[in-house]
Parts: sequence; structure tokens; C-alpha cells
Amino acid sequence: MAYLEKIDSPNDLKNLSISDTAVLAEEIRENIIETLSVNGGHVASNLGVVELTLALHRIFDLPKDSIIFDVGHQCYVHKLLTGRKDRFSTIRKHEGLSGFTNRFESEYDAFGAGHSGTSVSAALGIAIGNKLAGNNAYSIAVVGDGSFTNGMIYEALNNCSGDMSNVIIVLNDNEMSISKNVGAMSSYLSEFSNSRSYIKFKNKVYAFCLKTNGFGTLLLTIGRGLKNIVKKVFMTKNYFECLGLKYFGPIDGHDQELMELVFEQAKRKKRPCIVHVVTKKGKGYKFAEERADVFHSVGSFDKESGKTADAKYDFSAAFGDVLTELADKNEDIVAITAAMTQGTGLTRFATKYKNRFFDVGIAEEHALTFSAGLSVTGKVPVFAVYSSFLQRCYDQLIHDVAIQKLPVVVGIDRAGLVAGDGMTHQGIYDSAFLLGIPNFEVYTPENYADLRESVTAAVSSNTPSAVRYPKGTEILYNNTFERRYKWISVAEVGSGPKCVAVITYGRITANVYLAAEILKEDYCIKIIKLHRIMPQPTDEIFAECADIERILVVEEGIEKGGVGEKIAAYFGQKGKNVNLHAINPEKSFSGDLKNLFEDFGFTPSKIKDKIISIQ
Amino acid sequence: MAYLEKIDSPNDLKNLSISDTAVLAEEIRENIIETLSVNGGHVASNLGVVELTLALHRIFDLPKDSIIFDVGHQCYVHKLLTGRKDRFSTIRKHEGLSGFTNRFESEYDAFGAGHSGTSVSAALGIAIGNKLAGNNAYSIAVVGDGSFTNGMIYEALNNCSGDMSNVIIVLNDNEMSISKNVGAMSSYLSEFSNSRSYIKFKNKVYAFCLKTNGFGTLLLTIGRGLKNIVKKVFMTKNYFECLGLKYFGPIDGHDQELMELVFEQAKRKKRPCIVHVVTKKGKGYKFAEERADVFHSVGSFDKESGKTADAKYDFSAAFGDVLTELADKNEDIVAITAAMTQGTGLTRFATKYKNRFFDVGIAEEHALTFSAGLSVTGKVPVFAVYSSFLQRCYDQLIHDVAIQKLPVVVGIDRAGLVAGDGMTHQGIYDSAFLLGIPNFEVYTPENYADLRESVTAAVSSNTPSAVRYPKGTEILYNNTFERRYKWISVAEVGSGPKCVAVITYGRITANVYLAAEILKEDYCIKIIKLHRIMPQPTDEIFAECADIERILVVEEGIEKGGVGEKIAAYFGQKGKNVNLHAINPEKSFSGDLKNLFEDFGFTPSKIKDKIISIQ
Repeated sequence: MAYLEKIDSPNDLKNLSISDTAVLAEEIRENIIETLSVNGGHVASNLGVVELTLALHRIFDLPKDSIIFDVGHQCYVHKLLTGRKDRFSTIRKHEGLSGFTNRFESEYDAFGAGHSGTSVSAALGIAIGNKLAGNNAYSIAVVGDGSFTNGMIYEALNNCSGDMSNVIIVLNDNEMSISKNVGAMSSYLSEFSNSRSYIKFKNKVYAFCLKTNGFGTLLLTIGRGLKNIVKKVFMTKNYFECLGLKYFGPIDGHDQELMELVFEQAKRKKRPCIVHVVTKKGKGYKFAEERADVFHSVGSFDKESGKTADAKYDFSAAFGDVLTELADKNEDIVAITAAMTQGTGLTRFATKYKNRFFDVGIAEEHALTFSAGLSVTGKVPVFAVYSSFLQRCYDQLIHDVAIQKLPVVVGIDRAGLVAGDGMTHQGIYDSAFLLGIPNFEVYTPENYADLRESVTAAVSSNTPSAVRYPKGTEILYNNTFERRYKWISVAEVGSGPKCVAVITYGRITANVYLAAEILKEDYCIKIIKLHRIMPQPTDEIFAECADIERILVVEEGIEKGGVGEKIAAYFGQKGKNVNLHAINPEKSFSGDLKNLFEDFGFTPSKIKDKIISIQ
Repeated sequence: MAYLEKIDSPNDLKNLSISDTAVLAEEIRENIIETLSVNGGHVASNLGVVELTLALHRIFDLPKDSIIFDVGHQCYVHKLLTGRKDRFSTIRKHEGLSGFTNRFESEYDAFGAGHSGTSVSAALGIAIGNKLAGNNAYSIAVVGDGSFTNGMIYEALNNCSGDMSNVIIVLNDNEMSISKNVGAMSSYLSEFSNSRSYIKFKNKVYAFCLKTNGFGTLLLTIGRGLKNIVKKVFMTKNYFECLGLKYFGPIDGHDQELMELVFEQAKRKKRPCIVHVVTKKGKGYKFAEERADVFHSVGSFDKESGKTADAKYDFSAAFGDVLTELADKNEDIVAITAAMTQGTGLTRFATKYKNRFFDVGIAEEHALTFSAGLSVTGKVPVFAVYSSFLQRCYDQLIHDVAIQKLPVVVGIDRAGLVAGDGMTHQGIYDSAFLLGIPNFEVYTPENYADLRESVTAAVSSNTPSAVRYPKGTEILYNNTFERRYKWISVAEVGSGPKCVAVITYGRITANVYLAAEILKEDYCIKIIKLHRIMPQPTDEIFAECADIERILVVEEGIEKGGVGEKIAAYFGQKGKNVNLHAINPEKSFSGDLKNLFEDFGFTPSKIKDKIISIQ
């Protein structure tokens, strides 16, 4: 790491020769592979942007200029180059570097992200702000082609007018978003960037033209051999230039010299530019190149063999299985994903029911309204989506689904605390916001068996509904739960003199039970497990708590607007005091699930302490 | 109305001659002008789509085929033609017809709307659902060019693949969204559809070609005169055809015969089509043609003179005024709107500070993240947006503003109950969802003076903040409020023996006070008015209520997750019972503010009853 060691800030890059940066690029790749083989993370996308990131840092001046990485998962190279190489081994670890850009982490992270499609909007805001301040800094948005399926990008492109001369959008085209890319834009891009030999040839011409500053003349003289290229360049210019952008590309995103030449050109243009670079996901690491989908986001792996741990059977897989089995019996069931086929466990469904499966791209809003449209025709659409991304659909949940009482089923994956990905990926808001939406039924399974029951009920409910379940595996333990009501189970643990009722739901129920077991000598603890939180069974819960003074709600979601607050409000009206134990979203979220459970007080031991603290 | 009288369903249109439909079109215009001169409503857009709607109903077969009107405000002609003419005089009235499409109102309303950009997603869902059911019905989305600034449209277009052969998108291009249209797409469209004479000429050629089925031959033989047109047709094809759509247009949206020919053509295509029609807002009513912005959404007006009531000074205007004055003193203040310059009272600001004002189109998500970008550079961005449309930004509020603690100010207009526009336009969710978002300060002014104070505090707070205020005018009344805390005022009304504390905020405070005055003989009522609901001043409120047994929270927002529930939860933990009086979103919302206050129990008399009911 002789070169990387000397890079303390992007300034140190500027005097390197192109051949030196090539060595540096290899060191960066080595470092990323080494670190992620231990920590896990976004391998393929970061290996794909090594030269691109180097080129950007050499041509632009950070932090005066701003680079905004869309989604932010491809910022590892950027972190290595901006004074964070010494902490890079902590990436995604507890209290370590974030796996995404983060304004609180470095002045070089101009804008934080985690969700798709925000970069161009932020870049425009920053560019205009700079311009108003009389400052000519550049704003560069680096956007994967996957994010070009997201509507926000388009809303921002539509605003990218001629006077925003210091905005440069880099379309990082690796021909896939997270699994494979979908939609018309993807076809459009691949039409002219699929052929590597075409790009190579074209790039040679490009480089020559740029160096000799003779593009126009060249085109006229080079004759008929370029006819198709000219046509394609014309075609490709059109889409983006319709929207007022100056288009460059496609260029080879691993040819650093060429990229630097093009960025220099783009800097000189007095209008917003789009630079279309074609990169290879996983570049330079054979296993990641070959299995870019697996190495998109991966746990630890064996560096030498590329062997990754076998995927564990988890809630997502269980969801996919039950949905596929229900679809066997009910041909009206259709499944929708927003670019998360594998992540939401739908691979089996997608393979088996190709014509009943729809991956709409990273377009959650469209996905939900599209689902609503499907339900109008009597289909039973099931939209599987991560909780944090469902936040994008808050209006569509109300406006398109709830108000119209359309029986759309939302499978809310990664509900609750989420390991590794930090602030932006926590599934902690959905309980609270869903409780406020009319006409919704919300199921909260604890384990795979509950999940099966919930999904089965939801698809036959004929009303808007959602099933929320966490990332990870079920926690199995011996318990004495009995089903006392349709959607409530109750267990009584311990025979001590102190009585406490603990109301909870979802995965965390296990830890509540284990906490109760720790206390079983001194306490008699009634655990009320809600299989469904909406419509809220407040009367039943109240009946179960009638003789108990100490009441606690344990909730893997935010406190404000959550289940606990509602129960507390209801009980309060009947003169009963309820304690709440939920998530404060102002705290920081880092590390693995064990860290998160510790930090937010959800281990059996921490829950035990909470129970003891109730007077 | 000799023709209109005979139209009980769209079937009755099919045998009319083109000249008969022209007479019918005039009758429809007359009816709309007549009715809306009394009821108010969306005049200009509906007058613009008379021929278009007639053409669609004559060529397609509803309700087998589906027409989905984007936003839905241009559905009046459709309502007149689909069995609702006898109830048309009730439009926008209490318990009358909705001013938007509504599935519960008619089987001809395939999909309800009120917000922009959902139609193509819904149309695709319906088309796929029909196709899976082996049914070849058509799905037609009618989308104004303004909605083409919204990202959802693009997300859906990206999914409009070749096998969705029965999807037809009608781009209704009237060269403005609500005020004027903005952005690159608008420039792109106007580039080739601005010239009326060009359209007329081109349409003649089009019609001739369609009738003789000899388009190809004609183009080859008609010679050089068509060169520019060919070029433009080629250009225009490009943008939409990049996305896999067959493009027709631009055609004259008042030439019914031509539109019918084109729709017949589109039906026969085995791929999704876009038909670009150019219409004139307000067509056929001089005053609406001349002042299309005023007649976009208007109150009652004088039919003969076109005279509309002078705009009342209202919360929106007061907001615009204070913001402009603050901007006079602080040059960092910038204002952002999503196509609602006039609606949010920003006209004065926009005129005075042209370079500090940004209308980004109907693109709320982008607007907020763009604002976040601006704040990164030290600007003080103020995004003014209707509460119901802010729902579109729930994720951006968390992901881009709150998590990053960026001091963006959101001016939430139309917060609370909203007259005339029904279900989709109520500002009843924002209090609840904002309370759950970390790091936000939320101000809730009752009147213009409070508004001024709130906006002033928000722009200098250096933290994410929101100021919510209603549609309409302040209610002035004599009162005895005194400011006991920084953001809490208290009044004590009456000297009777029964003591009640009523906690409230915003506009409704006036009616609470008036209710208390009715009860002043028997009651002693302490009214606690919150100028700010977040951070929540629960301790102060509790202190004020310490000696009072009967406590009520009156809230012009949903109950679940609202301020009342939070207070109740807090008080419950201290053994105090709190009663809630808030909005149940499952009820229906219709008529004017008086109707809404009656229906939801917010008149002084209804609030009085509620106070009396507390034990």
C-alpha cells in the first residue's frame, strides 16, 4: 500500500502520473477486498468505481466542489481517499465508519444518502446555493443506472436548466441496479452501451478528438465507417439533450485518462452536463465480476476462493415461500418488487410465476400505485418492500390504497432494527405511520409460523393490509404462549409476587420472554403478544391487564405515534399507567444486530432491567 | 340542453354525428360554466377537455375500458357523460358529487385521484390485471403536461413495455400545469407544439394520411415542404420512443374528428401509445381563456362578466408577506414551490426575488431534497407546500432533512380541514407524521400574528422546522390569552364551578374559546394554546393542568399519533385521564368549511357539547 499510505486528502492525488494512479487503483482494490472479506459490505459496486472516483478527485477540488453519491453505497473508494483510510477497517462496524456517505463523518461527504434518487436534487440545490453566494464550485452527482429508474432523478433532471452550469451528472452504467436493471431506460442505455468493442473503438475516437480538439472535422472526414456511431451518438444525445443536458459518452469507466479528459471538457461547458461512463461491477476481483449480484451486498467471504457464506433461511425467504405456496392455490396473487427480488425473498416466486411477477425498478411509489391498479381488476397484489423504502410510499398508501380501500398487501421486509447499514436503513417508522392510515390491517408476526399465518390472512382479507417482519432469522425458544384471542397470544412466566404485564409484538417478543424467564423467581410476568397491531385490540389488551398495576409496552419501532403510545393513551383514559420502551430515532444506529439490541435496550438483560425499573 | 339530456351513459354518444357532438360540446360547456359560476371549481381545465373526453368516450367502451384522469380535476365532462348529469349541480357541495374521480361514486371512475402523477401507474396495473384475466380492455391515462414534471409518471413510463399493448397515454398539453409550466420537459414539448399554425397544418396532413392510410407514401412524395415537419416528428418521437412508446402527435385537442381517428389508430397498435393533444385551457369561455390561471380553480363568479370575487387576504398571503419581509433583511432566504406559487402565497416573493425563488414543477420530493441541498451551502430554504402534498415527502423529510439536521423550513399550507376538494386534499396527517420525525420543530400558529412569529422563529432556528397553517382566513375574536411560556398561551374563561382544561393549537383555538364562552356561567375553562407542538412541551402543559381533573385535547388532525395521544400517554403515566377530540380519517370529507366543522365537531357548539360530555 505504498501509494495509498501517502494519500491523506484528495490533494495528494493531483500530482500522481496516470501510471501511478493505476498502481494506486490496484492498492485500493486490494484494500477493499481485504477489508470487506471480513466486514462485509458493498463489494461489487465499489470495485467498479475505483478509476471513476480517482478521476473525479483528480479533476475536481473537494471539499470546495461537491461529489454526491446516489444511494451512497459506492463511496468506499471516496472514503479511502478523503482522510479515512486509517479507519476504513471499521466500516459498517459498531461506531465505525458508515457504509454510506455521512455529513457528520467528513467534510468531504457533501450529502448523506442511503435511499435512491436523491443525488441530482441535492446537487442542484448545492449548485444554486453556491451560485447565489457567487461561488463557482462544481456539484457532481454520481448516479448508477439503477437509480435512473427512480422518479426523483427525473424530477431533478427536469429542473436542470441551462443556467446551472456547474452541475455534472455522472451516469455510472453498470447495466444493473441491484439485481438486474429493468425498464425502458435500461433498454435504451444498453442499446448503445452493451458492446464493449463498440465502446473501445468509440473511446479511441473520443480521446483523439479531445486531445486534438478536432471532433467536428474528424467526423466529417473519417467517412462511412463511423456512420453507425454518428447515428448512435445522435440518438443517445437526444434523450438527455431533450432535457437540456450536454451529453458525453458512453465512455469506458475504467479508462482513467479518458475520463479525466472528459471531465475537463465538462467543466468547461457553460451548461449542465451528463457524463455516461460504463463500468464493470466487481472489476478486478474475479469472483465479484462473475457474481456481481451476490457481491452487491455481501457478508464476510473467503478472499482467496470467493466463497461466501450460504444464505441463511430468514424471514425474507420464509415470506417468499409462503407467498409462492399461496400463489399455487390462488392464481390471482401477483407479486411486485422495487428492484429487490432477491432481498425480499421473491426469487422463487419470480421463477415459478414469471408472468405474475413484476420488478418495476427502484420506483417504490409507482410500485404501490401499480399494485393498486392491479387490485382494481380483482388481482391480489403483494408488494414486498423494505420498511425504510416504504417511507417513499406514504402518500400512495393513503391516496391510492387506503382511501380507495383497495386490497393491496404490503410485505414490509426489514421492519425494526437493521444491522450494518446505519441510520437510513432502519425500519422503525412503519408501525407509527401505518397506525394513522385509515382502513389498514397491520400484522406483526414473531416467527416464520406467525408469518405464514399473517400472509395467508392478509391475502384473503379483501382490505388494505401490511405484514411487517424483520431482517434476519427467527429466534426459537421454549415458551408457553397460548392463543387467547384471534390475534393475541398470552404467556405467563414466573410465580413471584411482583406482577407485570408486558405488551409486545414481532421478533422482540422472544427477548421479552427470555427477560421474563430471568425474573421468574421474583416476578409473575404476563406477556401479551400482538400478532396484529391494527385494528388495535385495545379492549382485549385492557381486559388482560385488568388486575395488573405495572404495565410495559416493548416496541421495536419509534415511540412517537407507535403502538405503545396508543395503548398508553387508551389506558390513561381508564386511569391506568403504561410505561413505554421503544426506539429513540435521534440516537445513532451502527453495527450488527447484537450492537443495536444492546444500544436500544432490547437484549433480554436490558429488557429485564427495564421491567425491574417499573414502579 | 337537448342533446345532453339524452346522454345517460357513454353508449348514447356512439351514434351521434360529429356535428351533433359539436352541439353537445357546446351544451356541456354551458352547463359547466353555469354550474361552476355558482359552485366554483376547476373551470379552465374542464373546458379544455370537452372534445377530448367526448372522443375518448366515443372510441372506447367504458366501464370495460378504463379512463384514468391524472389528478382527476378535469373529470367534470366525464361525469356529465356517465350518468351523473342530474347530480352535477351538487359538485363540490356537501354530500354532492366529488370534484375528482371517485371509485365509490361511479363504476365509470376507474381510479380515484387528487394528487398528481398516479394515472400511468394505475393504468398499467389495470392493463396487466386485465391481460392476466384474458381480457383485452384498454387502459387510458389522461395526463396534463404539468404532471409530466412529476417523477411517478416517469417511473411508470419506464415500465411501459412493449407487451402492455392496451395502454394509451394521452398527454393533454395545455402549456401550463397550474400556473405556468416549468422545466426541461415543458421546453421540450413547447418546442414543437407552440405554433398553432404548425399544428393546424400538420393535423391536416395527419388526418389525410389516416383517412387514406397512406402516411408512408405521402411523406415520400410531398416533397421538401414537409422537411421540417418530418424532422420535428422524428425529434418528438425520440423522447417517448426511447421509452418504448408509440408516439402520435401533436394533434389539435379540439378537433374531435381527428382525435377519434388517432385513437382508433392507437387502439390497433400492438404496443403502448402516447397521444399528444394540444388543448386550450378555458376553451370556449372567453374569460377563462384569457385568465386560465385564475380560472384553474375558482370560487363562484359572474358568468356574464367573468368577474371573480377578489382574493381574500388569507394565511397563504400572510405567509408570503412575512417571508418576503424576512427576505428583505436576510439575503440567504430562498423560497421553493412545487407548482403552487399562487396557491402558497408566494407571488410577491417570486416577483421581488426572482433569483431566490424556485418553482420546480409538481415535484414535491425533489423540491424538498433540493431545499436540503440549498441548506448545505448556508442558504435558508423555505419550501411552501400543501399539507396533503407534503405526504409525498415523508421519506425525504426523514432521509434528507431530519437525519442530516439540515435547517430546511417547510411552510405547510392547507393544514387541517380543507373545503371543497374532498378526501384527497385534507391536511390532517401532517401533525401526526411530523411528531415522529427526529430533530424537527413544528409551529402551529392560530392567526396571522402567530404565523409571523412562527415563520420568523423557524427561519432563524438553524434546525429542521415546519410551520403549519390552514387554508382560509384567521378568525378574529376578543380573547384573554396571555403568553405564559415561550410557545404556550393560556386563557381562563368563565367562573363556574366545573373546571376543564382544553389543550389545542392552530385555527381551531378560536372555536374552542368561543365554546368556552358559551359555557362561562357553569364552567371555568382553562384553554392551553400551543404555538409549537414539537419539541413537545409536555411538562409545561402538565403543570398548567395540575389541579384540573377534566382534560380535553381538541385537534384539527388525525387522532392516531397526534398531539392529543402523546399528551394522553404522558398524562396517563402520571395517572391523569385525557379526552381526545380529533379527526377520524375514515369519515367522508365534503362541502365547505362550515360543513366540515359541523361534520367533525369543530363548531363552537359542537366543541361545547364535547366539553359538557366529559365526566
